[in-house]
Amino acid sequence: METASAAHSGLIDGLSVRRACRAGAVRGTTAGLAPGFAQGNLVILPVADATDFLRFAQANPRPCPLIGVSEAGDPHLPALGADLDVRTDLPGYRIWRDGECVAEVADVRQFWRKDLVSFVIGCSYSFEEALLEDGVEIRHISEGVKVPMFRTGISCAPAGKFRGPLVVSMRPLKPADAIRAIQITSRYPAMHGAPVHIGLPQQIGVADVRRPDYGDAVTVRDDELPVFWACGVTPQAALVESNLPFAITHSPGSMLVTDVKNRSYAVI
Amino acid sequence: METASAAHSGLIDGLSVRRACRAGAVRGTTAGLAPGFAQGNLVILPVADATDFLRFAQANPRPCPLIGVSEAGDPHLPALGADLDVRTDLPGYRIWRDGECVAEVADVRQFWRKDLVSFVIGCSYSFEEALLEDGVEIRHISEGVKVPMFRTGISCAPAGKFRGPLVVSMRPLKPADAIRAIQITSRYPAMHGAPVHIGLPQQIGVADVRRPDYGDAVTVRDDELPVFWACGVTPQAALVESNLPFAITHSPGSMLVTDVKNRSYAVI
Repeated sequence: METASAAHSGLIDGLSVRRACRAGAVRGTTAGLAPGFAQGNLVILPVADATDFLRFAQANPRPCPLIGVSEAGDPHLPALGADLDVRTDLPGYRIWRDGECVAEVADVRQFWRKDLVSFVIGCSYSFEEALLEDGVEIRHISEGVKVPMFRTGISCAPAGKFRGPLVVSMRPLKPADAIRAIQITSRYPAMHGAPVHIGLPQQIGVADVRRPDYGDAVTVRDDELPVFWACGVTPQAALVESNLPFAITHSPGSMLVTDVKNRSYAVI
Repeated sequence: METASAAHSGLIDGLSVRRACRAGAVRGTTAGLAPGFAQGNLVILPVADATDFLRFAQANPRPCPLIGVSEAGDPHLPALGADLDVRTDLPGYRIWRDGECVAEVADVRQFWRKDLVSFVIGCSYSFEEALLEDGVEIRHISEGVKVPMFRTGISCAPAGKFRGPLVVSMRPLKPADAIRAIQITSRYPAMHGAPVHIGLPQQIGVADVRRPDYGDAVTVRDDELPVFWACGVTPQAALVESNLPFAITHSPGSMLVTDVKNRSYAVI
């Protein structure tokens, strides 16, 4: 995971990040930008698929905690940010046709349709901030790479056309840090909440924690346990499995940065 | 761990258990008696040792969460129960001299002195009730034995004459149940709170989870992680290490049953 460059040092809140994205001044990851503000995964679908996707999210709240849903055709989400336009305000997007990613673009205005609904899903960046503040080392941040992610053998609860595997992110932690991380992330159900697994990866169909399906490999030491959280990449895996005719998502790591403080999502 | 016998079926609250103990009608473990009411570990010391012990408990809150401390010479603890007399109201006691257990008795009135202070320390029976209510299987209860306990390689923070190893109890749990158990027991800091370790017993000096130092061995399956909580036996280990001239404690498993509801100790 790259950190904010010196050129991004002024990007201290959601609005300034979004305006910089809109101006083409931000590329790649949003990790480290606008500290303290929640970032979200973005899924944009035709309204005809919206009910099924809402049911999928409702049935799978750990990977798909919805923090915002737009009106059909409206690219704004005022509850998540002032002057927020999902078509331009992220650094990068993926265009999906028939379950395949067919393009990566910096702006989706040319793909916009009057029937599109935007879904914003909580992101682990928020709970990682809480972990770092508590002194828990996060390996992929220390090593400057993307979090390792794995397709598990666990199936999401299907809903209409949506089905697919639960995708998880993995952070290796010393046992005492793992216990602390479970306590801290339990406070953030809107950011995937507590881990779904700890310590025995084969049980969830992960053969080798050093060979992720998405993101990058990180060091896992002998005195650490791999800890697995449900991941917002899960809906992208469901788009593939369901061969959806058309969809737009964020590019991995290029999230929607909101005006909502991370801490406002803590349930206790 | 034995469960309440049919003869004990009327022992549904703290007061009735304590009166039955006083009448000599209860022997052995208090596990399963007065469901819903907190039980405690008991340590009785001369007032000359009380400050050091209070400092030891303050410095080691995970193994020694104090839920009650008496006036010197007063065998009553009205905050923990009506008509509560620590000299008679437990099924069994240990008498300690110079760091050795010299007697196991059913009543300590003959050992009572005007300078004795009673300390009551929260007990894992309380959080086990919360785990069982949540559907988490607790192996030593399923197998009808005492919880396995281990002396760790972790030293407690010393205070005055008190020093010694952290003693832990161990419960084998499936990973998802371990995560849930961390959430649930975090709510009960007065009952040892969250685990102190999970998954890698050698790291805390436990060579073989199937060979406990106290209590009984339980089955640990390949799909389970050993989860370790700080244990109220820790102060007994400190009495031994410190060669204390005189002390009284409860006998293992024979706890003080209070009038305070377990749930009233939950912090959230």
